Amino acid sequence: MTWQAVGIFDSGVGGLTVLREIAGALPQEDTIYFGDTARVPYGTKSPETVTRYAREITSFLVRRDIKLLVVACNTASAVALPTLKRLFSIPVVGVIEPGARRAVEVSRSGRIGVIGTAGTIRSSAYTRAIKRLDPSAEVLTKACPLFVPLAEEGWVDNQVARLTAQTYLQELIDAGIDTLVLGCTHYPLLKPLIAEVMGSGVILVDSAAETARTVAEILAQKQCLRPDSETGNHHYYVSDIPAGFIRVGNRFLGERLGDVYQVNLEDDEEEF
Amino acid sequence: MTWQAVGIFDSGVGGLTVLREIAGALPQEDTIYFGDTARVPYGTKSPETVTRYAREITSFLVRRDIKLLVVACNTASAVALPTLKRLFSIPVVGVIEPGARRAVEVSRSGRIGVIGTAGTIRSSAYTRAIKRLDPSAEVLTKACPLFVPLAEEGWVDNQVARLTAQTYLQELIDAGIDTLVLGCTHYPLLKPLIAEVMGSGVILVDSAAETARTVAEILAQKQCLRPDSETGNHHYYVSDIPAGFIRVGNRFLGERLGDVYQVNLEDDEEEF
Repeated sequence: MTWQAVGIFDSGVGGLTVLREIAGALPQEDTIYFGDTARVPYGTKSPETVTRYAREITSFLVRRDIKLLVVACNTASAVALPTLKRLFSIPVVGVIEPGARRAVEVSRSGRIGVIGTAGTIRSSAYTRAIKRLDPSAEVLTKACPLFVPLAEEGWVDNQVARLTAQTYLQELIDAGIDTLVLGCTHYPLLKPLIAEVMGSGVILVDSAAETARTVAEILAQKQCLRPDSETGNHHYYVSDIPAGFIRVGNRFLGERLGDVYQVNLEDDEEEF
Repeated sequence: MTWQAVGIFDSGVGGLTVLREIAGALPQEDTIYFGDTARVPYGTKSPETVTRYAREITSFLVRRDIKLLVVACNTASAVALPTLKRLFSIPVVGVIEPGARRAVEVSRSGRIGVIGTAGTIRSSAYTRAIKRLDPSAEVLTKACPLFVPLAEEGWVDNQVARLTAQTYLQELIDAGIDTLVLGCTHYPLLKPLIAEVMGSGVILVDSAAETARTVAEILAQKQCLRPDSETGNHHYYVSDIPAGFIRVGNRFLGERLGDVYQVNLEDDEEEF
């Protein structure tokens, strides 16, 4: 398994923040990233539909011979993880569990807020994961559907973004949380603004770094890390034409993307 | 052809505003509506992908034996109409041409603004359609990507929506347009706010009523209108589970929807 790549997928570009952390922690590993840009976003869609998409993408990545799968999309992690773990034999890592673990570690009061898409929040996946780790924790959740389009529009520090954040977050401020989980891969782009609105007493948790740590642990445990002397290659697949992904992706990844290939999953043979 | 239904499709629920006008103008006609809720929105996707989706949906509706197709989605009308007209033998009506015609009719100064999704605006379809009707018209366009998520969030008259509208529309106000085309089926939900921001000197044009008129004309011309004494039935298909469509759809249609069926286009046989 050692020489195989790490597979990562997201509904679009947001998961590149997770890829960046994985590539930083494990620079010797090859990665294959899939962004479902022809069907993005997932956060407004039903669990059944998101699970079907996640299954199709995982089939595609497994046929490209990955050794571990990272579901970098919070919505897909929230609703599709049990199905993927049941259907596929490779290790599957979501972003919910690592984010929940980090939140429980850093919170002193045990009052933890979680923000995400409608799909993620409706699933209660974060609440369950946090309560499993700390049954006494109090979890307050809030869906923030406008944060994704604001981040994609690049409106991350103007008056519209500020007012939107104040509208969504006021009830979490009033509830006196001391930790806030950014439960969507787009939200790190709004992090300075969210920090400003929440105030300095609240710690913001984003799952990307913690997820990369989990991936490193699993690969080390299974003794299938590539030698440190190697330098990994990164390949990208998307379901819509690559232009938009490349443009926004460079902002997310913080550097220039390599080659990006388009693939039509609906035509892809051997569906699982 | 007389007894066949009128087919209507949109990326989601927005096209129900067009269905409402058609059902109002032609209450004797059956309709079949398709909302592509598993892949919504189209406005951020490439012309190639939107055209592929439009072709799949049209194949589905043609197999259900429709006599005319209405592309109620502005983005799909803007990029896919020539392909659909080439591939299918039934009349195909988009929403761009009727909206452009209405704008040219009502504008006195010939300075016409058009707002829509990124995909619609990038296509320049409205500008071309307006210039064909009035080569001396001056057309100013502006993509307003946040209007769709605002309408779906139900934020149509709060301070965030007002500030967003002011930010997007200021340059159209400065340019002194006297007519503004609402080039997206979601925008009628924001109409009172847009009217307030634009001021009373600007006429707002939405394509739905004009599109219904075009449909009535074509059916009359082809002598395949059903007799006035009939009452049409309305059937709905969606690609995601129906719950969300029904909830938002009742707001768009202004009455209770009938039965809504889910269909997976990717499994649908005899793909065109």
